[in-house]
Order: sequence, then C-alpha cells, then structure tokens
Amino acid sequence: MDIEKLAIEQFEQIKRGSIEIIEEEELKEKIKESLKTGIPLKIKAGFDPTAKDLHLGHTVLIQKLKHFQDLGHEVYFLIGDFTATIGDPTGKTQTRPSLSKEEVEENAKTYKEQVFKILDKDKTKVVYNSTWCEKLSAAGLIELAGHMSVARMLERDDFEKRYKSGKPISIKEFLYPLIQGYDSVALKADVELGGSDQKFNLLVGRLLQSKFGQRPQSILMMPILEGTDGKNKMSKSLGNYIGLNESPIDMYGKIMSISDELMFRYYELLSDKSVQEIESFKKQIQQGSLNPKFVKEQLALEIVERFHPGQSQKAKKTFDALTHNERPDLLEEINLKIDTQTIWICHLIKNIGFSDSTSKAKRLIEQKGVYINDKVLEDVGLQIKKGESFVLKVGKKQIAKVTIK
Amino acid sequence: MDIEKLAIEQFEQIKRGSIEIIEEEELKEKIKESLKTGIPLKIKAGFDPTAKDLHLGHTVLIQKLKHFQDLGHEVYFLIGDFTATIGDPTGKTQTRPSLSKEEVEENAKTYKEQVFKILDKDKTKVVYNSTWCEKLSAAGLIELAGHMSVARMLERDDFEKRYKSGKPISIKEFLYPLIQGYDSVALKADVELGGSDQKFNLLVGRLLQSKFGQRPQSILMMPILEGTDGKNKMSKSLGNYIGLNESPIDMYGKIMSISDELMFRYYELLSDKSVQEIESFKKQIQQGSLNPKFVKEQLALEIVERFHPGQSQKAKKTFDALTHNERPDLLEEINLKIDTQTIWICHLIKNIGFSDSTSKAKRLIEQKGVYINDKVLEDVGLQIKKGESFVLKVGKKQIAKVTIK
Repeated sequence: MDIEKLAIEQFEQIKRGSIEIIEEEELKEKIKESLKTGIPLKIKAGFDPTAKDLHLGHTVLIQKLKHFQDLGHEVYFLIGDFTATIGDPTGKTQTRPSLSKEEVEENAKTYKEQVFKILDKDKTKVVYNSTWCEKLSAAGLIELAGHMSVARMLERDDFEKRYKSGKPISIKEFLYPLIQGYDSVALKADVELGGSDQKFNLLVGRLLQSKFGQRPQSILMMPILEGTDGKNKMSKSLGNYIGLNESPIDMYGKIMSISDELMFRYYELLSDKSVQEIESFKKQIQQGSLNPKFVKEQLALEIVERFHPGQSQKAKKTFDALTHNERPDLLEEINLKIDTQTIWICHLIKNIGFSDSTSKAKRLIEQKGVYINDKVLEDVGLQIKKGESFVLKVGKKQIAKVTIK
Repeated sequence: MDIEKLAIEQFEQIKRGSIEIIEEEELKEKIKESLKTGIPLKIKAGFDPTAKDLHLGHTVLIQKLKHFQDLGHEVYFLIGDFTATIGDPTGKTQTRPSLSKEEVEENAKTYKEQVFKILDKDKTKVVYNSTWCEKLSAAGLIELAGHMSVARMLERDDFEKRYKSGKPISIKEFLYPLIQGYDSVALKADVELGGSDQKFNLLVGRLLQSKFGQRPQSILMMPILEGTDGKNKMSKSLGNYIGLNESPIDMYGKIMSISDELMFRYYELLSDKSVQEIESFKKQIQQGSLNPKFVKEQLALEIVERFHPGQSQKAKKTFDALTHNERPDLLEEINLKIDTQTIWICHLIKNIGFSDSTSKAKRLIEQKGVYINDKVLEDVGLQIKKGESFVLKVGKKQIAKVTIK
C-alpha cells in the first residue's frame, strides 16, 4: 500500500471522535513524514493530578492516545505535577486553591497506576513537568511571559467573564497557560491532545514552540464528557464522575443511573462499538423493538469489563438484585456455620463480612438499612435459628442469600 | 536631648521636599525605635540601569538618600540589573524593548561610578537585584504572582490607559512590580524611596513584605524632576536630561537654557539653598530688583560646582563668551608657535586641539561653524600670518583668544 493512502487511513482513524484539529493538512503531512522516515510522532497529553483518581472523563483522551500508540507513535503521558500546584483556571469561575506538593505526588501516583488500564505500559513514556519546570528560572518564565499580551489572555472566555463580573483573577493564573505551552517546547511535541475547553492553552503551546524555533505542534481536541448528571463536565469535585478505580458494582450502578439521552453520548465517546451498531440501537429504541434499559446494560457491561475484566456479569447480577430485580437463582449464596442454636443478627452481619463490627451493624439496622426477604428489619435484637435461609440486604450495595447451618 | 524630640527633628529633615509618605506615623515610630536601639534603618532606593549615565532627575532621590545617610541610617543603592532586563513599564505608553545583559552591565558600571559624586562611598551598600532574582525560580515567581490580582494590576493608571486604548501590555510587564516588591523582601527594607510615579510598585513591596511575615516598609515619595523642556520627566531617552557626567560647560549651558518657571522648580528639588533664600529670589525678581538671569546663574554655578568642584566659574566664563557676552580678558589664551610664515586655518584648528583632523575642521568651516572675531569664516583656504591675534570660535562650545607666534 502506498504511503499516501496509508497516511490518509491513519489520519481518519485519529480524527474519529475528535471535535477539532488544528490544522488538518499539517497533521496529515506529519503522519506522511513519519511513515516515510519511520520516526514516530511525539504525542503529548497532559493531566494535572488535582484529584485522586482518573475517571471516565479522562479516558476519552486516553483512548485517543491509545489509537496513536496502536499506530506506532510515541505517547507521552504528561503528569502535570508542577502545573497542578498552580491550578488550571480553565473554566473555573474563581481562583482555585493550590495543592500541596504532597497531595499532588499522592494523586500522581494513582494516575500512573490507573492509566495502564488503557495504555500499553511498555510503550508509554510517563513524564512529569516538574522535571523541566523546576529547572526554569524566574528569568525564564519572564521570557515566556514576554510572548503573550494581557489583552489576548483576557480574551479567553472564562477570564473575560470573571474580569467583567469583577471576580478576582490571580496573576498566577495568567502564568498557567504559559507553563503548559512550555511543556510542549520541552517535549518537542508534534501533536498535543486536549479537551475542547483547552483550546486557548493548546494554542499557547503552538505559539511558544514557534518562538523557540520549533515546528508548532498540531492540536487534536476531543469532546468533553459530561458527568452522570448530564450537565456539567465530569469532575471529581462535582461528584458526577465514574472513577476508573471504582468497584465493578459501583461503576455498573452509576452507568445504569444515567439518562437515556446521556447514554448515547457515552456510547459515542466511550464505547468501542461501531457507529453503525450505535445507530441501530437508536433506531430500534425508537421503533419500540428494543428496551432502552437493555441498551444501557450493554454499555455498562462493556465499560465494567474494560476496567474489571471478567467481573461485569457478576456486577450486573448484584445490581439487579439490589434494585429489586432479584433473580434468587443468580444471587450469591453464603452458608454460615454456627456452633450454637441461634445467632444474633448483628453477629451474623459481621461474620459474613457485610460490616466491620457489630456496633456498626446495629447502627445500620437502627437506620432502617437492613432488609430480610425484602422487608425492613426493625428488631435490633433479632436472633436467627440454625437452619433458616433468607435473602439479606445490608446497606445499598450488599446482598446475598444466607443460610445458617 | 530626648529621643522623642530627636525623632521629630529627623523626621522633619527627611520629610522636606517629599511629596507623600506612607505612613507618616509609622515612619516616625521607626525612627524613634532606631534612635532607641542604635540600629540604623535600612533605606532602599532602586535604579534600573536602562541608560548609560545618571542625570539630575536621579539626584532628587539620591540627595534624599544622602540625608538618611547623614542621619546615620544604612543606605542601599540598589542597581536593578535584573529588573532592567524586564523593563519598567511605569508611565510608558507601550511595551519597552528589553536590554541585553551586556548593555545593562555597562550601564550599571557608570551608575556605580557616578553615584558617589553625592553619596559617601564608605557608608553606601551598592547591591544588585540579580543577586537574589537570579536565584528565584519560576515556582517562586509564580508564588509572588499569586499575591496580586489582574484587576488590581490593571487599575494602575498607565496599564489602564493602555488596556482601554487597545495598546498591548505584555504579561511580562505585570511581573515587573512583583520583582521590585520582592527586592524589598530580599533586603528587608525599612523604608523605600521612589518617585511619585512609582507609588503602585512601592506599595507592592509593602504587600509582599507582609505576605512574607516582614514589617512592611515605609514609603517616601519624591517629586519627579521635569527635563529641560519643562514638560516631561527628565529622561535620557527623551533627550531632555542633564547628565552627571556631562562637562562643566554642557551642564552650565543646559541649566542656563531652562525657563524662569522651571528654574524655581530646579531650585526646589536640586538646590541646597534654604526655602527662605529661594522665596527671597522670587520676590526680588517680581519687584524688578533682581535679573532672573542672575538667579539662574547662581543655580547653574551651584549645580556645576557640586559635580565638578572648582570648575563652575570657568564654565560660566566659557558660556558667557560663547553666547556673545565675551569679556576678552576672561577668555582662554592660546599661543601657537609656527615655523613658517603662515598657517592654513584647518591646520591651526587641528593643532590647538579644537578638531581631530583637518578634514573635520574643513567640514566645520563649510557648515559655517567657525567664527573669527565673531564673524563667520567663509574661506576654507584661509592662511593666517605669524603675529596675528584674534578670537576663534569652533562649533558651539570651543572658544579662545589665539595668537600665532
């Protein structure tokens, strides 16, 4: 196959799902050049470790990194441990508090652990921007600042809004885009990936690279994934996120809780299903030949399976049981052997591992959080006899068929 | 004498000529404390070596430093070699070009040489802000930037004007006041002196010191000296300055060229004459009992004598001669011995040192810049005979009574 054709194929694969590319022709040219020379492109995506875990919102970008990686390009997963201490003001309505070095390091550790649920560990270069930014002097930063005007910075949507409404912007926040841009200079990035809300910052990278005599990076912007509320950007601080590190049942449950509309957004941005399959789902739902709940289950199963291989069916089973779709034949069965004739319900709950202590179990019963055969348990002193068998539900996420032997 | 009284006396001496003090009571308190403990106050004044020489405009501040020095306080003459590479945007209508490190070093050298025409060399600490600013990291600068908001910075008069009129402000310029403020932190300054146009920057020093847990510096602002045009701030780049390094005749001539109105401004800001003497001059001029020219001569003599001890009378004599107030008995006499019967005028000019070469002398004659006995010399080929004697004027500043022997 000739290079021209190969390049176009690569480009189409890379473009899929993206919202904007700056500039398309330039990126095609770079891909062609890489195919000719055999030198992979340097692909940069930066993540500020401002919270503990990665969530599905991050994976939109990380999946795209994976596409580049599968095509043989060199992926730089940049952990913005330096920028995190400044705090990215993008889209924020107020100056955000800075994180301590310790918090940032702790968060960076979880990022590094979780990103390899998607990327190939052996082929990924994990880099920290503190490596070069800590070496940058005040004079160096002042030089960067000389390349950008106050007016241009204030044109940025969020800054403009805050400035006009009299909400304070710290001068520190003006330095953030410069540092992010400088990362591209330090890495000599050929392509940078980012969310569409990062456009301004991504363009600063292009600007600074050209000031430093480098070929400016191409920019590929991915859509922003909404959180489970369907309104705001998925974010840990808004509590509308699905974390990569969440248990199979939590992840499954959160996906099942989203609206039908949002479900198709998630299909587009997260699923590996083809555009045709997704369209077919939509059509069948409209025609009434497919229950939306079934389609949502397929999504939940796919995502859970991705991050917890082999555990998606069990998650579905538990979820169904918890949401009163019990099929007792699918419930987990627990047999508890006792030496006495009866056992106090709180001891039982503790012994099967549904609670850390009897006092905690007692509190749960008092708060009407324990069900026996789907009925709230009122009697905190209940004794259960040897030989009894029943469905026990403790809290919102634990359910099993218990038999006392 | 009790300390209370002494402190008030010191304060009054310091206050003289200043335009604003922030805060008066605070500064009095510091003076009192210094008198009690015997620990001198640290007095800071910063000068960015953006041009080659110091001029009279600088001396308004330096004279005030001298007052502090004479009172036993510790004077820090801060050479802003780091800030000069940024370029102080204060009062500028556009981003000013940065100077190279070499230019700045060259300029700093002349500052250091010239400042001791006023200050006591043994008692003055000359410091360079590159000493601590070069050690400052980008992270350190970002921390400083976190203490100041964009809105507050844009409230600064000159920034506001430029922003509103759409003239670019570099983000670099926002960092200048922070660095100047950081200098006060590094020096732990008790008092900073500055021109009244520096108020914003001086206040940033107070702000940062308090953020760094230091007692904020008091601020003493001196008026801005107008240049010889009587309109703009004295500045090398505007060409309206009188440099400390200028020759006695240049200095004398420039002072004699200013307006009568400006003359009194210079008296106020530069002269050591008492307020009473100055008022008396004004009165006598109004009454017609004193010629303003005489009063201006007294000023020119005082200033020239300060920077060129013992040379003010000769400067006056030359100036008078050059401006057609010749008193031939006061002119410099030059006797030139020749071995031939005549000498070509161009050789003569060169031989008495009024020109580097005969070709330059010839050019001057052609440009009507040479006078013999107050008449323009037209004949470039003129031969002068042995025994002749005349007043020769070459260019605007060279005059002598020449005798050929």
